Amino acid sequence: MKKIPYRFVLSEEQMPTKWYNLRADMKSLPEPLLNPATLEPAKEEDLYPVFCKELARQELDNTTRYFDIPEEVLEIYKVYRPSPLMRAYNLEKVLGTPAKIYYKYEGNNTSGSHKLNSAVAQAYYAKQQGITSLTTETGAGQWGTALSEACAYFKIPLTVYMVKGSAEQKPYRKIAMQTFGADVVASPSNTTEAGRRILAEMPDTTGSLGCAISEAVEKAATTPNCRYVLGSVLNQVLLHQSIIGLEAKKAMEMLDEYPDVIIGCAGGGSNLGGLIAPFMKDRLEGRSNTEFIAVEPASCPSLTRGKYAYDFCDTGKITPMAKMYTLGCDFIPSPNHAGGLRYHGMSPIISKLYHDGYIKAVSVEQTRVFEAATLFSRVETILPAPESSHAIRAAIDEALRCKETGEAKTILFGLTGSGFFDMTAYNAYNTKTMTDYIPTDKELEISFEKLPKL
Amino acid sequence: MKKIPYRFVLSEEQMPTKWYNLRADMKSLPEPLLNPATLEPAKEEDLYPVFCKELARQELDNTTRYFDIPEEVLEIYKVYRPSPLMRAYNLEKVLGTPAKIYYKYEGNNTSGSHKLNSAVAQAYYAKQQGITSLTTETGAGQWGTALSEACAYFKIPLTVYMVKGSAEQKPYRKIAMQTFGADVVASPSNTTEAGRRILAEMPDTTGSLGCAISEAVEKAATTPNCRYVLGSVLNQVLLHQSIIGLEAKKAMEMLDEYPDVIIGCAGGGSNLGGLIAPFMKDRLEGRSNTEFIAVEPASCPSLTRGKYAYDFCDTGKITPMAKMYTLGCDFIPSPNHAGGLRYHGMSPIISKLYHDGYIKAVSVEQTRVFEAATLFSRVETILPAPESSHAIRAAIDEALRCKETGEAKTILFGLTGSGFFDMTAYNAYNTKTMTDYIPTDKELEISFEKLPKL
Repeated sequence: MKKIPYRFVLSEEQMPTKWYNLRADMKSLPEPLLNPATLEPAKEEDLYPVFCKELARQELDNTTRYFDIPEEVLEIYKVYRPSPLMRAYNLEKVLGTPAKIYYKYEGNNTSGSHKLNSAVAQAYYAKQQGITSLTTETGAGQWGTALSEACAYFKIPLTVYMVKGSAEQKPYRKIAMQTFGADVVASPSNTTEAGRRILAEMPDTTGSLGCAISEAVEKAATTPNCRYVLGSVLNQVLLHQSIIGLEAKKAMEMLDEYPDVIIGCAGGGSNLGGLIAPFMKDRLEGRSNTEFIAVEPASCPSLTRGKYAYDFCDTGKITPMAKMYTLGCDFIPSPNHAGGLRYHGMSPIISKLYHDGYIKAVSVEQTRVFEAATLFSRVETILPAPESSHAIRAAIDEALRCKETGEAKTILFGLTGSGFFDMTAYNAYNTKTMTDYIPTDKELEISFEKLPKL
Repeated sequence: MKKIPYRFVLSEEQMPTKWYNLRADMKSLPEPLLNPATLEPAKEEDLYPVFCKELARQELDNTTRYFDIPEEVLEIYKVYRPSPLMRAYNLEKVLGTPAKIYYKYEGNNTSGSHKLNSAVAQAYYAKQQGITSLTTETGAGQWGTALSEACAYFKIPLTVYMVKGSAEQKPYRKIAMQTFGADVVASPSNTTEAGRRILAEMPDTTGSLGCAISEAVEKAATTPNCRYVLGSVLNQVLLHQSIIGLEAKKAMEMLDEYPDVIIGCAGGGSNLGGLIAPFMKDRLEGRSNTEFIAVEPASCPSLTRGKYAYDFCDTGKITPMAKMYTLGCDFIPSPNHAGGLRYHGMSPIISKLYHDGYIKAVSVEQTRVFEAATLFSRVETILPAPESSHAIRAAIDEALRCKETGEAKTILFGLTGSGFFDMTAYNAYNTKTMTDYIPTDKELEISFEKLPKL
């Protein structure tokens, strides 16, 4: 039997040079994006005003199995990748579980998360096309930081619409983005039509990802040679994030291991989709029975309590419509919700796989999430992001079940990022002022009633 | 010629299992610590009230060349080590230099710095001896965070005296330490005699490392079964930090490389001492002509403008005296100084090597440091700590000299940490409100007059 190291890092030559497109192997594809004006499936050209061409192609391509990662993208990947595959010996010991726990750690780069994997790709394609500025939204700030880094590298001016509540709670995130040269605007703002409309309706709103997306899309559509980029949900993003799963699979193969259970936190689905992609291929082709678990916050439970329906990707209702599990594009998570994973919908690919029974979903309350984060930090010496800690919670729960049943399952979870910018939330947990919130059925019903009638 | 990767990481089996004690190979040893009561060289037993026994032994042992790293320490090292040796291709390109720039990146762990290497060792030996609590001081907060992590792992209660100015400027550092279970006290405080005395003399002081050390030492000496640990300056700390240099040397050998110049930031000297140790052995034994450069802040210039003299390690004058380059133990850097590297003295080992001409020193002003940090972050996508950015500044300057002369030198510098908790300083630089301060000769003279007369 091979000796498994605590930390296994592939060499530069072993790093994958292609992204994997899971859609090429799905028997039953996600429903197409709809053009909201015609209600017809969106064509590549329909997406050009918002996305640059190559990304529009990647968004709609359901057949190309592998995409070459451009050399210029690999040149940045190589600064922080391959990321380590960790064996959580210390956590296993403290839990007293017979399970083997692995995690793929994406926090070892300045953005503090996996988001840089897609940011670099999207900034590169924009540069290639001669796009002269970009816009985006950010919630907790991981995506905004990642894109700021990528745009600094490729020298593309960037405007980030940051959810207002988060901008106020995380001033350091804002400074980090500014250090990389980005212009950061708290959203909703009075710099766009969409922002002004939302402010007129809800002057005291702390904002939402949906609002911020509306503002960023409008800014891109009304600025010459500007495009919008998004850090999750989209098929193109899951494609870029497949690097996580490809590396994890290769590393586990080299260690003669294969996961029985794969766990990922799920907000828009980018990390989960990227992590599971190559393993899901095995499952779809009958070569494995791996169980896939999406973990979402109880305060924003799109998979576990949402509707599988066509909905807008933004609150301002100007984006294409996607068939996905959604809480309704007007849903705004309770202000006590810390960290990211606050999007109203879910990646159409993840939604479809969940709908077809290939993925399970659980929701967890944030105090239990921070309990897991604190335990983890003390034995693994990594201070995890709140988002990532949802996966830690579920992995610990699974390992404790194994302790009861005596099963020696091999668990793999995605540790998407570090919590350096989330100290306010940790402080709330440390001082026992953190609370939980679970939306009532009535609240969700009101939100569902506003879903588009097709 | 070998292809050099962007990022080269040794495997777990290649990680060194012994620390290297440079003193065993120094022809001319650092002067001994003096017991301040007797003015005689301190014996191991003299140190027992403050340090635990094995660390007292390591502190005074000038002959044992290699110390085995305990298995329990290796078990934590393996979670975040070996650390990557980076080739800064992107930085070289933007500078247009013929020089090859390498950096050893120690920021990829939660403490965000190299400090964890010694924290783990010191906490382990304390646990072994049955010590039931520890105290320490922290300035910028890297050491405090690192020791909090280590103490959380070994379940040892810890009190951290944090320089008051820093505690106010960096609330997130404090929360991080609290998350790992540490008790954080802003220093000077009224919880110790030393603190009360300093507060009586200077009620508005923002504190200094020297003050915080006095408080931590007093607390350890007056609490049953408690000991004090220090994150830099001491011989034992440089011993533990030799892991940095040992890994760097092994990695460079595997790449058929050897540095012509090694650059490290220097506050107390722990990172510099650890990084250069095995390379200095070669130089001392006539096998290389590598140039060693210590980089310090112009606002706290112990090597470039200090005296080589016996001085106290703390402001309260209760520690043993060390012969070192010092600005005087009452010296407090200007409040506009951002980040760490604010200690009044310098490691006796580094001081001796500098005095004997083996190390050069330069001082740099902080606006030039942040200019270098910002450039670096945009091309290498790592947001560096202000401390580490002193080394970046000097490395860039060296690379630009190479551009003028056409020399293709191989430069290695220590990138000791990440800047996630230093966003206030970055904001000052971004908004052009950061200023420089260079102490006047008169100021230093006043401080030197208070040096102990032996």
